Amino acid sequence: MNIRRATGKIICAGLGPGDPELMSVKADRAVRGARHIAYFRKRGRAGQARRIVEGMLAPGVIEHAMEYPVTTEIAFDSADYNDALAAFYDEWTTRLAALAETEEIVVLCEGDPFFYGSFMHLFTRLQARAVLEVIPGITGMSGCWTACGIPMAWGDDVTTVLAGTLPEADLARHMREAHALVVMKLGRNLAKVRRALAAAGRADEAWIVERGTMPGERILKLSETGEIELPYFSLLLVHGHGRRPEAGKR
Amino acid sequence: MNIRRATGKIICAGLGPGDPELMSVKADRAVRGARHIAYFRKRGRAGQARRIVEGMLAPGVIEHAMEYPVTTEIAFDSADYNDALAAFYDEWTTRLAALAETEEIVVLCEGDPFFYGSFMHLFTRLQARAVLEVIPGITGMSGCWTACGIPMAWGDDVTTVLAGTLPEADLARHMREAHALVVMKLGRNLAKVRRALAAAGRADEAWIVERGTMPGERILKLSETGEIELPYFSLLLVHGHGRRPEAGKR
Repeated sequence: MNIRRATGKIICAGLGPGDPELMSVKADRAVRGARHIAYFRKRGRAGQARRIVEGMLAPGVIEHAMEYPVTTEIAFDSADYNDALAAFYDEWTTRLAALAETEEIVVLCEGDPFFYGSFMHLFTRLQARAVLEVIPGITGMSGCWTACGIPMAWGDDVTTVLAGTLPEADLARHMREAHALVVMKLGRNLAKVRRALAAAGRADEAWIVERGTMPGERILKLSETGEIELPYFSLLLVHGHGRRPEAGKR
Repeated sequence: MNIRRATGKIICAGLGPGDPELMSVKADRAVRGARHIAYFRKRGRAGQARRIVEGMLAPGVIEHAMEYPVTTEIAFDSADYNDALAAFYDEWTTRLAALAETEEIVVLCEGDPFFYGSFMHLFTRLQARAVLEVIPGITGMSGCWTACGIPMAWGDDVTTVLAGTLPEADLARHMREAHALVVMKLGRNLAKVRRALAAAGRADEAWIVERGTMPGERILKLSETGEIELPYFSLLLVHGHGRRPEAGKR
């Protein structure tokens, strides 16, 4: 019997929140030793994942920039956008699977690959077609709450992670139920997120961390900001206050 | 004027989920270079944090094992337990603050220090008394869902982290509201967690990861397990299924 075995594989390396020093030892080694790297980016941009590994790559590394299809003229939740993205992921699945028959490719992913990561769209498509390995990373939110300098979740605190793209009523309901709270995808949703927080009675406790652990990091109390413009890498945090032992607190 | 300045400091190094290779480059360097390390452990145990760094420590390192006060004869939620723990944290705050006037101490913490970490009890007490630095880590839950091999949260998924110690009705309510779900502190709470999941209609989707990324790692479907005994390092996961582009999914 003649079974063809892949000799290559695809390693997805979680790069952590932005500071290259916060990459795991394992991811650091994979990146430095890579002969092929692949990463997502918007057309015309360097790409955040690629930026994190700047200065770490071996000479002669072959770079595969996976450029998202142009989407400015297509509505984000339209069927056309869905089809364009699906075709994009399908195409890169085919290209990476072919390469992974003989080569090892390191796919660079910000944060933790399995936590809201774009690589997951390739992972599910590649599972039957290539040998895959995923290296977890420090999430962007861990980087942000550490930068903020306040412990995030204690004891029995309920922690909830929300996307600012959710409807306002849904946001407010979850904000009421959770103790510790993270809101991602703030961007154009900040006004809505602020209203939802106010409705849930949490607006005074909220912090915004811009570019956590990266150059240009900025930490703001939401209550002290107006309708500011936020960079893509921004998170909103509301800290938990769960059970903690204090003398005489009976 | 004669201002006394501390020349030492306290660095809390997040060690990640268990595999020493998943420590950040920064934490790895701090641990290997440490002259003083401190870590929590139960009396008579090696301690998980100490176990992770086995073989990494410099010769002559001075170890400060912070042993939790014996608690088997005191109820967990009693005032006596609270007082004993508070006194324990107060005592170590004093000792570490004194040491940090001249020495650098690396406190070892599993996972990510600011996410349900014991160090937070020292952090809040030490803030006014020592120079502090916290290095984030890969959370135990990231280690577990990567080990499980299924992407955890997509697009607009709501992710909620719960402690199995919560009342059953609270668990069920949060389980109904979340898309991606993590339950920590399973131990003796597994039967209750299972009932809450069933009430929320999520029991068939749940996975248990024991000792994720560590020796003895085991991954089970909840529906295929009976009333098993779980080790302390166990997590329950329910994966999100959020928006994802697929061809023809209009």
